[in-house]
Amino acid sequence: MKIGLLGGGQLGRMFLQAAANYPFTIKVLDPQADAPCAHLCDEFVQGDFRDEETVVAFGTDCDVIGIEIEHVSVAGLRRLQAMGKKVLPDPEILAIIQDKGVQKQFYERHHLPTAPFYLIERKTDIDLNRIPLPFVQKTRTGGYDGKGVQIICRQEDLAQLWDVPSVIEALCPIAQEIAVIVLRDEKGSTKAYPAVEMVFDPQLNLVDVVRMPAMIAPHLLKEAERLALTLADAFAHSGIYAVEMFVTKHGAVWLNETACRVHNSGHLTIEACYHSQFDQLWRLLAGQPLASVAQHTPAAMINIVGAEHHCGRAKMAHLHELLALEHVFVHWYGKTQTRAGRKMGHVTIVAKDSAAVDEKVVAVKKFVDVIAEKE
Amino acid sequence: MKIGLLGGGQLGRMFLQAAANYPFTIKVLDPQADAPCAHLCDEFVQGDFRDEETVVAFGTDCDVIGIEIEHVSVAGLRRLQAMGKKVLPDPEILAIIQDKGVQKQFYERHHLPTAPFYLIERKTDIDLNRIPLPFVQKTRTGGYDGKGVQIICRQEDLAQLWDVPSVIEALCPIAQEIAVIVLRDEKGSTKAYPAVEMVFDPQLNLVDVVRMPAMIAPHLLKEAERLALTLADAFAHSGIYAVEMFVTKHGAVWLNETACRVHNSGHLTIEACYHSQFDQLWRLLAGQPLASVAQHTPAAMINIVGAEHHCGRAKMAHLHELLALEHVFVHWYGKTQTRAGRKMGHVTIVAKDSAAVDEKVVAVKKFVDVIAEKE
Repeated sequence: MKIGLLGGGQLGRMFLQAAANYPFTIKVLDPQADAPCAHLCDEFVQGDFRDEETVVAFGTDCDVIGIEIEHVSVAGLRRLQAMGKKVLPDPEILAIIQDKGVQKQFYERHHLPTAPFYLIERKTDIDLNRIPLPFVQKTRTGGYDGKGVQIICRQEDLAQLWDVPSVIEALCPIAQEIAVIVLRDEKGSTKAYPAVEMVFDPQLNLVDVVRMPAMIAPHLLKEAERLALTLADAFAHSGIYAVEMFVTKHGAVWLNETACRVHNSGHLTIEACYHSQFDQLWRLLAGQPLASVAQHTPAAMINIVGAEHHCGRAKMAHLHELLALEHVFVHWYGKTQTRAGRKMGHVTIVAKDSAAVDEKVVAVKKFVDVIAEKE
Repeated sequence: MKIGLLGGGQLGRMFLQAAANYPFTIKVLDPQADAPCAHLCDEFVQGDFRDEETVVAFGTDCDVIGIEIEHVSVAGLRRLQAMGKKVLPDPEILAIIQDKGVQKQFYERHHLPTAPFYLIERKTDIDLNRIPLPFVQKTRTGGYDGKGVQIICRQEDLAQLWDVPSVIEALCPIAQEIAVIVLRDEKGSTKAYPAVEMVFDPQLNLVDVVRMPAMIAPHLLKEAERLALTLADAFAHSGIYAVEMFVTKHGAVWLNETACRVHNSGHLTIEACYHSQFDQLWRLLAGQPLASVAQHTPAAMINIVGAEHHCGRAKMAHLHELLALEHVFVHWYGKTQTRAGRKMGHVTIVAKDSAAVDEKVVAVKKFVDVIAEKE
């Protein structure tokens, strides 16, 4: 069996590390010749996964096609599916996920709680009577890692509005942000990993620390799990779904955004759980039974991001110090070039309880800086 | 930094899976174009690691050279070391290990307990007055996976003796076989993983099941650890050493054989310990701090070997059934061809206690058969 993966970034790299435990050939498509996956797969094809013809040509000799990034050609995937290939996620689900407007409408249609919203085509469509200031603008397509999202606070900020099709969303009174990774197999059985709690860096608008278990009231965790599983059932297709949610200050749980792939919020499943999200992705693609989602140790994950004012050949400034810490796991993504805010790797920390994990987070944070080497 | 690895088999493959978490380029040398490592490293060179010139040419652009198989050119490694490269294991230690006669003499010189022995050049050197029947013949070089070892029981078996330089060893009254993996860093600090117990398949003379923790009296485990650490200190060079030992029926612990590389008996460290032997090998090669050797869960490992009378394109006959078992971890080595007794993969099992592990071992054994596919 040959599995083709669209995208050769860090998610693909961790998938390949897991997939090397199993039979089946893996082929990867990415536009960058030095992508994190380039040298870790059976076959690497340099090409644009956004291009329909490239995707079709890439997938023609594969039995199964998966993704590790969502900005891929849905038209290409539809054609591969029509050729009898297994495509995961289903192209129709991907089409819903790719457009944040359609994604919100999907939540609404399935009566799933989410922040009030309306859609605009251009900035002149703004209607402060529908959602007053402050509100959030999210571009319907193309955003990632905090890009394509802005908060409009005051009347004078309206000039900053992007003039593109967008979701205009009420600013959620966020108490906490959480995520649940759910799996749905071909028979329709679902499983959910324990919820994680995400702490954001307000400057980069990137997740700073992810904790499992989440420090959130049990009834809210239960509600989050219920919502995530309901959403997976609403999608009605097998796949792995990373469901990001807000816990509001009023104690409600609202859906924020969903990814139909392995996700940053699930990286700590490698060390915290018996089976990682990457192992599960392989099982889904290969049509094999899903594995346990049980957690065996408390854990936290810290993203390693490129330091500000550093652009060039990447170097972990304090790798040695980091590796000297106990029960600390480094995942470097193999990107040669760093730039401010770029995800370069992550660190997972495990400890006997959450308090001990939090203590170690402080120690680890001193050593996760990535700098540009003097050339 | 560029790390070169001699050997591209399964040990190298699991090393590459771990090494993908870190910076540094990895280059692999193996004679087989379809070696398990061929598509998982930054650079793959097809060539003979037993050949001095090939090894030197391969290592010239590396900063560090390591091994995953012991049958490599020591002369080539000595030259690379003389060029200022870091070589691990030290070529002089490898020279000791490669020759089972010299290895036994090393134990003797360091007053380390081992089965009584003498060396022969040819079969006519046999002296039944020195070691009476039954005894063991081990060829001094070239043996592996039970090959190059035979037991001579009766007078009439003497005709079967191999006519090559050999170790003649008294047959140890074996109660149990155990192994300890020890690590020694550049400063001379040592660490030992918990001892594992090895159960052999008498037909294939291959390890069938490895258990951690070993079910052996605590004072014997302590003695095994002491011996393994003493041996690592005697080697007086940084490295990873897999020390195989016998527990005799008289309650003594004797050294059997030592490998100066990652080892089959340490595969279960991937799931049973916070850090695997492969992670430690990367740290040793990269000059980074050694990690914890603590175990966090009881575990067992079963080798997946090619079934008898099956020779050809390899297929796991019951992969689906195996993957449906809870807390069972499959490691397929990516070898395309199977043959009787060939190591094709392994399975690790974890459970809450050793009794539960043993129960699962029985279940797993039903599903580890590798057959040759009809072509």
